[in-house]
Amino acid sequence: MAGRLFGVGLGPGDPELLTVKAARLIGQCPVIAYFAKAGRRGHARLIADRYIPASAAELPLYYPMTTELPFDHPQYLETLARFYAVATAALAAELERGRDVALIAEGDPLFYGSFMHLFVRLKGRFDCEIVPGVTGFAGCSAQAGAPMTWGDDVLTVLPGTLPYEALVTRLKQCDAAVVMKLGRNFDKVRRAFAELGLLERALYVERGTMAGEIVAPLAQERDGPAPYFSLVLLPGQGRRP
Amino acid sequence: MAGRLFGVGLGPGDPELLTVKAARLIGQCPVIAYFAKAGRRGHARLIADRYIPASAAELPLYYPMTTELPFDHPQYLETLARFYAVATAALAAELERGRDVALIAEGDPLFYGSFMHLFVRLKGRFDCEIVPGVTGFAGCSAQAGAPMTWGDDVLTVLPGTLPYEALVTRLKQCDAAVVMKLGRNFDKVRRAFAELGLLERALYVERGTMAGEIVAPLAQERDGPAPYFSLVLLPGQGRRP
Repeated sequence: MAGRLFGVGLGPGDPELLTVKAARLIGQCPVIAYFAKAGRRGHARLIADRYIPASAAELPLYYPMTTELPFDHPQYLETLARFYAVATAALAAELERGRDVALIAEGDPLFYGSFMHLFVRLKGRFDCEIVPGVTGFAGCSAQAGAPMTWGDDVLTVLPGTLPYEALVTRLKQCDAAVVMKLGRNFDKVRRAFAELGLLERALYVERGTMAGEIVAPLAQERDGPAPYFSLVLLPGQGRRP
Repeated sequence: MAGRLFGVGLGPGDPELLTVKAARLIGQCPVIAYFAKAGRRGHARLIADRYIPASAAELPLYYPMTTELPFDHPQYLETLARFYAVATAALAAELERGRDVALIAEGDPLFYGSFMHLFVRLKGRFDCEIVPGVTGFAGCSAQAGAPMTWGDDVLTVLPGTLPYEALVTRLKQCDAAVVMKLGRNFDKVRRAFAELGLLERALYVERGTMAGEIVAPLAQERDGPAPYFSLVLLPGQGRRP
C-alpha cells in the first residue's frame, strides 16, 4: 500500500507555534521532506527541529540557483519546472515504497508556498492531507500587538513583487493590508506607502516570533533588502464600538 | 503583581489545530475567559475543551442580544460598547488579583475577533501577549485541498456584510478571495460571484476541520443562511511553472 503525503504547515517561525497536529505528524512520519537553499539547512528544517525524531529519514529538496533570473524569464520557469519534477519523483518514490512523507513548510502550506507545486503534481496519484499552519502575517501582527481587521474591513494580501503602480492602486483601495515577499522590493513597497501617506500607519516586522525580531514603524529608515522572514502590515481602522 | 492577559487563538475548529503554545497556556492559566451566546457554551469553549484543566476558573463573557438590530444602529453600538466595558472590567478584576487570564478565541485573535475589542481596552493597563492561531480560511482551504495563492496572486479577504456593489467591485479586482461572515449574507455573496462568472471557480466550506464538514462548489444550490463556521474561497490561478 502506498504511503500518504502530509503537507504540514509550521507557522511563522517560533517552534511553539506549530499546531499540535503538525507536531504529532512530524513525530510519526518515517520521512521528513523540506525545501532548502543548496548548502543550507533551510528555514523549515530549523523550525521543526525539536519535533523530528532521530529515526526519521530526511529528504531535503534543494532549490536550483535562480536568483539572477527574473521571474518571467523562460529559463527561470524551465529551471523551476525541472526542479519540481525531480522533487516530485523523489517524494513519489518514498510514497510508492509505502512510507508516509511529511513535507514541512513555513507558514501555511497553501498560502504562497513551494509545497503547492508538489501537491498539485502528486494529489491525483497519492492520498494527501494538508495540515494548515499559522500564517507569517498572523505571527507578525501578534508580535506587533496590531489588530488587523475590524468590522467590515477588507484585508488585501499583496506580494511585494508587484509593479509600483499596481501596489499603489491596490493599497489605495484596501482598509488593511499585508505585503509579503519584500526582499529587494522593500524600497519600492516603502515608496508606495509613502505616496499614499500611509507610512505612519504601517509597520515593518522582521523575523516575527523568532530570535532577532524587529517590529518598527515603516516610517523608520532602514537600508538594503529585507530578509526572507519580513513583511509590512497596514492594520485596519474599521468599525468598533 | 498584576496578572498577564493572553489572547489565545484556537484555530479553525479541530482541537488538534491549536498551537503547542496555545495548548500549554490554556493548561497553565488559572482563569480561562471566552465569549459565548447567552445560554450557550460557546464555540471557543468547545474547541479548547480538552486542554482546560478541571482546576481552571472559567469566565464566560455572554454577548448581549443584538440580532434584530443593524450594525450601524446607535442602539446596537451602545449595547456592544456597554458589553465590552463590562467584560473589560471582569477581566481587569482577575488581572488585578494577580491571576493570569487566557482569553481564548476562534481562529486568530487579531483577525476579525471580539478579542480585539477587549485587547485595546486592556493593553495599556496590563501586560498582554497574543498567541496567533490558524485562520478559518487556512483550515478551510486545507480541507478543500485548494491552494489559495500562487506567484504574484493578490488575496482579498472580504466580509460578506459589505453591500452587493462593493462585493462585486472588490471581487472583480482580486486574483484570490476569501469571503467571511456569510450568515444571512450568503445569497448576496453568491449572486456577486454569479454576476462575475466566478461560481464555478469558487468553493463553499462549512464547519471546515470539524464534524459535519461540507466542502462544495459554490455553484451547488443551498438554502437558508450559512452557519457561523462557513466561508467562500476563490482560489488563485497565478504563475506556476
